[in-house]
Amino acid sequence: MNIKEQLAKRAVEVESYLQQCLRDRNIPSRLLEAMEYSLLAGGKRLRPALVMAFARMHGADPEASMPFAAGLELIHTYSLIHDDLPAMDDDDLRRGRPSNHKQFDEATAILAGDGLLTEAFGLMLDAAMEKGLPVRNVLQATSMVAKSAGAAGMVGGQAVDMEFTGRGNVALDELRRMHAMKTGALISASCVGGAILAGARVEDVQAAADYGRNIGVAFQIVDDILDVVGTEAELGKPVGSDEQQGKTTYPTLLGLDESRQLAQGYVDAAVKALAFCEGEDAEFLRELALYIVKRAS
Amino acid sequence: MNIKEQLAKRAVEVESYLQQCLRDRNIPSRLLEAMEYSLLAGGKRLRPALVMAFARMHGADPEASMPFAAGLELIHTYSLIHDDLPAMDDDDLRRGRPSNHKQFDEATAILAGDGLLTEAFGLMLDAAMEKGLPVRNVLQATSMVAKSAGAAGMVGGQAVDMEFTGRGNVALDELRRMHAMKTGALISASCVGGAILAGARVEDVQAAADYGRNIGVAFQIVDDILDVVGTEAELGKPVGSDEQQGKTTYPTLLGLDESRQLAQGYVDAAVKALAFCEGEDAEFLRELALYIVKRAS
Repeated sequence: MNIKEQLAKRAVEVESYLQQCLRDRNIPSRLLEAMEYSLLAGGKRLRPALVMAFARMHGADPEASMPFAAGLELIHTYSLIHDDLPAMDDDDLRRGRPSNHKQFDEATAILAGDGLLTEAFGLMLDAAMEKGLPVRNVLQATSMVAKSAGAAGMVGGQAVDMEFTGRGNVALDELRRMHAMKTGALISASCVGGAILAGARVEDVQAAADYGRNIGVAFQIVDDILDVVGTEAELGKPVGSDEQQGKTTYPTLLGLDESRQLAQGYVDAAVKALAFCEGEDAEFLRELALYIVKRAS
Repeated sequence: MNIKEQLAKRAVEVESYLQQCLRDRNIPSRLLEAMEYSLLAGGKRLRPALVMAFARMHGADPEASMPFAAGLELIHTYSLIHDDLPAMDDDDLRRGRPSNHKQFDEATAILAGDGLLTEAFGLMLDAAMEKGLPVRNVLQATSMVAKSAGAAGMVGGQAVDMEFTGRGNVALDELRRMHAMKTGALISASCVGGAILAGARVEDVQAAADYGRNIGVAFQIVDDILDVVGTEAELGKPVGSDEQQGKTTYPTLLGLDESRQLAQGYVDAAVKALAFCEGEDAEFLRELALYIVKRAS
C-alpha cells in the first residue's frame, strides 16, 4: 500500500466520525449545513492522521483520541473558511467548489467558522469526557492546541500574512516565521497533541514537535511551489493566486529548484526526529514526510 | 455600597488581569492592539463577576477562578466584534467608540475575534494549569462553555438572529429561544462554570443554571427596552438600531409596559433560584438580578 492509499485508509474512520460529530446538537439547520459543507468537503485529513499516529505510536488507543483528532480538523476547516472571506484572501473556490461565503453568504461563513472553532474545543475535551483518556493529558493537550491555534500561532500567522501581502520586500526569515505560525503551529500541535494524549515522555513529545515543525515548513514550501507549477484540476483552486495577490513565496525568493531543495532539507530533518521510533506508525510518519516533497516534483 | 459600586469594585481586579493576560505571548503587535482595543474598552465585566461569585459562594478561591472568568469575557468580546462586522449587524459604534473593524479594518477585526475566542480556551484551562483548581472540574466547566458558546448556543443564536432580521413575523416563542441561545447561554455558562469549578453539588449547579438562564432573558428584554427609551450617551451606541434594522424585539411584540413586567418575572425567578444560598455573594447575585430591571425603568 503506498502512502496515498495509507492516508486514504486512515481518513475513512475519521470521515465517518466527522459526519456525525455535529449531529443531534440542536444546531440551527442552515448553520449546520454551512459548517458541514466545508467540514465534509474531503481533504487529506492530515491533522487527524498525525494525532492518531502519534497517539498510537506512544501507546494510546487511537479510537479514544478520535474526538481530539476531529477537533484539529474542525480548527483547520474554520481557518480555511475565514481565510477565504472577501476581507481576507477573497477566494471564490476551495477544493473545487464554491468557497463557504460564495455557497452561503458572508455572515453565515463567519458564523460557520466561529461555530467550528468553538465546537472543536468541546470535541477535544470529549477525549476525556467520553473516551476516558486521562483528564490531565487531555487538558494539557487542549491547552497546547489553544496556544498553537491562537493569536501567537495560527491566527497571528494569518494576520502577519495579511500585512505581508502586497507589501513586497519580505525577507526569507520573515516568511519562515510567518508560515511557522500560520501553518506549522497547527500541524506541530497535531503531532504533539497525539503524544501528550498518550502520556509520552518529554523527549518523545519534543521529537513530535520537531517532526511537526519540520513537515509544516516543508508542506508550506511545497504549497507555494504547486501554486506555480500545479494545475487547477489537481489543486481544486486557481493556480497563480499567490502571484496575483502579490504574495512573497519561497519560489519568488529562491526560485523553484532551491525551494525544492529547501523542502527536502526540512523533510530530512523530520525523518531524523523520529529516528528512535519504531513500528507501523513510525514508518507511516516517515513515508508521509517523504511524500510531501514528492508531490512537488 | 450600591450594586453599581459593588459591580465596579469586582471589575477592578478582573480589569488588571485582562490588561496583562495577552501580554508576553508573541502576538503580532497590530493584532494584539486590535484584540486589546475591544477587550479593554470597559464594560460591566458581568460574566467574570458571575463566574467568581458562584465559585466563591461554593467554596473555591476566587483568585484561582480568575483565568476562567477572564476567558468568558474574551468570548463575550469576540462575539461583539464579529456581530458588529459589515456582513452581520454592521454597527459602526460600540461602547461610544468606533467598532473594531472601523478602528482597524475588517480582516483585522475578524482575526481579533478569532484570536480572542481561541485564547479564551487557553485561559480557561489555565485555571488548572496555573492556578491549581482540580483538573476534572476545569475540564468539565470548559467543555460546558464550549457547548454554550458554540453552534447550538451563542453562535447559533446569532445565526438565527440574522435569519429573523427583516423577516418579520417572529413569534414570542421564537424570539425567546433565539435570545436564550444568543445571550442566555453564555451568561448561564458563567454561573454554571463558577459552580462547577468549585465542585458544587448537582443541585447547586442546577440552581446556578436556573439563575443564569433567567437573568439572561431579563437582560435581553431590558436591552431591547433601552434600545427604544435609552439615549446614545447612556448606551454608547445609537438607539433605535433594532427598529432601523427591522428586528423583532420584546417591545415590538408586547409593548414597553408588558416587556417590563415580563423582565420582572424572570428576575423574580432568578432570585428564587438562589433561595437556599447565603452569604455576601448570594446577596450580590440577588441584587444584581434586581438591578437588571431597574436599569429599564
